[in-house]
Amino acid sequence: MKQTIPYKIYLEEQEMPKQWYNVRADMKKKPAPILNPGTLKPVALEELSKIFCTELAAQELDDTTPYFDIPGEIRDFYKMYRPSPLVRAYCLEKKLDTPAHIYYKFEGNNTSGSHKLNSAIAQAYYAKKQGLKGVTTETGAGQWGTALSMACAYLDLDCQVYMVKCSYEQKPFRREVMRTYGAQVTPSPSMNTEIGRKINAEFPGTTGSLGCAISEAVEAAVSQEGYRYVLGSVLTQVLLHQSVIGLETKAALDKYGIKADTIIGCAGGGSNLGGLISPFVGQMLRGEADYDIIAVEPASCPSLTRGVYAYDFCDTGKVCPLTKMYTLGSGFIPSANHSGGLRYHGMSSVVSELYDQGYLTARSVEQTEVFRAAQTFAKVEGILPAPESSHAIKVAIDEAMKCKETGKEKTIVFGLTGTGYFDMMAYQKFNDGEMKDYIPSEEELARSFASLPKAD
Amino acid sequence: MKQTIPYKIYLEEQEMPKQWYNVRADMKKKPAPILNPGTLKPVALEELSKIFCTELAAQELDDTTPYFDIPGEIRDFYKMYRPSPLVRAYCLEKKLDTPAHIYYKFEGNNTSGSHKLNSAIAQAYYAKKQGLKGVTTETGAGQWGTALSMACAYLDLDCQVYMVKCSYEQKPFRREVMRTYGAQVTPSPSMNTEIGRKINAEFPGTTGSLGCAISEAVEAAVSQEGYRYVLGSVLTQVLLHQSVIGLETKAALDKYGIKADTIIGCAGGGSNLGGLISPFVGQMLRGEADYDIIAVEPASCPSLTRGVYAYDFCDTGKVCPLTKMYTLGSGFIPSANHSGGLRYHGMSSVVSELYDQGYLTARSVEQTEVFRAAQTFAKVEGILPAPESSHAIKVAIDEAMKCKETGKEKTIVFGLTGTGYFDMMAYQKFNDGEMKDYIPSEEELARSFASLPKAD
Repeated sequence: MKQTIPYKIYLEEQEMPKQWYNVRADMKKKPAPILNPGTLKPVALEELSKIFCTELAAQELDDTTPYFDIPGEIRDFYKMYRPSPLVRAYCLEKKLDTPAHIYYKFEGNNTSGSHKLNSAIAQAYYAKKQGLKGVTTETGAGQWGTALSMACAYLDLDCQVYMVKCSYEQKPFRREVMRTYGAQVTPSPSMNTEIGRKINAEFPGTTGSLGCAISEAVEAAVSQEGYRYVLGSVLTQVLLHQSVIGLETKAALDKYGIKADTIIGCAGGGSNLGGLISPFVGQMLRGEADYDIIAVEPASCPSLTRGVYAYDFCDTGKVCPLTKMYTLGSGFIPSANHSGGLRYHGMSSVVSELYDQGYLTARSVEQTEVFRAAQTFAKVEGILPAPESSHAIKVAIDEAMKCKETGKEKTIVFGLTGTGYFDMMAYQKFNDGEMKDYIPSEEELARSFASLPKAD
Repeated sequence: MKQTIPYKIYLEEQEMPKQWYNVRADMKKKPAPILNPGTLKPVALEELSKIFCTELAAQELDDTTPYFDIPGEIRDFYKMYRPSPLVRAYCLEKKLDTPAHIYYKFEGNNTSGSHKLNSAIAQAYYAKKQGLKGVTTETGAGQWGTALSMACAYLDLDCQVYMVKCSYEQKPFRREVMRTYGAQVTPSPSMNTEIGRKINAEFPGTTGSLGCAISEAVEAAVSQEGYRYVLGSVLTQVLLHQSVIGLETKAALDKYGIKADTIIGCAGGGSNLGGLISPFVGQMLRGEADYDIIAVEPASCPSLTRGVYAYDFCDTGKVCPLTKMYTLGSGFIPSANHSGGLRYHGMSSVVSELYDQGYLTARSVEQTEVFRAAQTFAKVEGILPAPESSHAIKVAIDEAMKCKETGKEKTIVFGLTGTGYFDMMAYQKFNDGEMKDYIPSEEELARSFASLPKAD
């Protein structure tokens, strides 16, 4: 007998994952090790522990342990906003008149407005456990900074956020959310750090970049007693924590006997995508199931579809370990008219390696079509999505429309990573018909690739 | 055996209410009838149907039918964002170190950011069913306008929103959410209506008021073929729709065998409070149970605690029916430094009558203590609350602290009506230490009472 699928599938509290899943453990060919930018040798735990909390550094380097227990304190925090619903998009299906069954895992029902909180609480927890005073980080649009502020407020930990200057000025609301949670928010590049002063001197009036804010946050962490640096994406520890998204998604599907055909996620640094797909890719790696997995990125920042697979710097200041990843070069900065987030120059080493091995495909989409998809979705599903998440919506709609042509009743699952409530300036541009698309030229990418480190 | 109470109690989809509850049916002494402002006679269905959809006008006037079926189409829409969770505030309890058990019904997990969507979809549905082209309404901060825009987009109905001019200018983000959902948003007072032009001529440069925006929206509705006016609070039909909040809350409590002692809600026009308390007051009216019910209002707009119980105009233009309610006079405008919503001069006739009969008590609180409570709550419960909702938080914390003194293990339930993501300018003022309190003087209220109609 077939069960009726509710609009929203919620796991019970006791069904929530008790362990994170480390997909690297099931990969025969592992992601390349991260390297010390000075010695070009694999980074040791001891070195990495100077930047990250020791337990997080250990998670970063561990590519053999398949499961990590989620500490009880973190699970308690998760219970405040998780399990997140797996939503059957009945209204979108009806609107598209498609035979496809569309599901989305909605991570936006918390004040940070996104999935970032899943890793923020984990990183703050390990910092607290290690007896640290506080953590430093960078934030672009502010999703990650907000999430970290919330986690730090909960654990009574100091939180210093370097916010890309243009966002600090243009997005005062997220800044105020962080301040309400007690975080200290500094526009980057600042005069607090050596690298900040250097960049300000070299490029007077610069409005900053994520790579530069990372460098400042790292410097602030290593130069203050009792502080460590934390990061919201790209790192493998973040993917580990974000596996809670995929594990819950899989548990919810299994609960109703649903088998996904296509799994779609937006890809910036890769944390949401990596977390969502981890348990499914795990099945593929173990030969237990097969899925069509699609990473969606902005055409204006196309690291998977047009990048190279090489060791690169993670930050502008070149202080972080070198990572082998699909990258546009650490000097790459997306066009000023790019509104939709997902603006990091590289991609998680795990996602990069899985992509290189053919476990997923990638597509790039332009922003006006992304916002159009967002609007369609908002009108029928009642959620105003983040521009980032809307990249996945766009391709989910495309796939559902293909099903309409072929008549195939595919099951499509996508990650709705967050809400767009703090992105209304971008929506306003769209509403006013003033949004432009931008695709970097071959020449532009070639110039950017020149910033890659020479040794590989 | 005592069950463990999860952090979030979710009803199953099939446990969601199938009927709204009309508390008036159980009241021996009914709220006074609404009057035609010209004839001072009770308004007939026929008259009221010129302003409201016929079915909504019938709901407005019906004080005997205890239950109204929720149409299937509305229940389907509800399924997209309901049932809303009843949250056990474990972390707040721990922070306060109180023996009290605190629960909150969280209505903010939808893009409108509040409970307003519950009535918006109902009102839009009946308008669509009547074959109308569209609806008109007013909005202050924009919660109601956003909710109505969402409902109209879903049903493909035209939506015209008159937004109080100061909010239109100072809160562009909500305006853009409404526009993304396809609504036509006009700053009020506008030059579109006779009353708008009159007010603009009389008070050049005015930034508007809710009462004035109501008058414009009503005029726009009656002067366009195929349009009706809809309203987000105050009206009894709205309370009827909002009873879904109370019904779900009661069902969730009953599911776990929990008996509430104290029920707390913030009170502006009374829609959330009335909806939350309806089924509980119903039990009190039928002699089945007893509760301590507390309405919380801003000290700067104290209609219950300092108003008079009298017939008054609902709008500045005096076009709406006269309603007997606790009121500060329709000429009352809260001080400019008031940030926290809940700025309507009067109170729902049902809530007013219940208050007059002693079924609930009322308290007024000042805004800096409200924002302080909001911050405490946000840090431990992870949700940044709307300033409106934070009035209820403030009193819930007060009550929990009393339990700490007395050692009583009371069960406190409060309504968390929404999120504060679009109220960051108010939070910024609070973060910067620039928020001021304001309590209107006796003289100020006396002047305002002078605007009451003479006949009663």
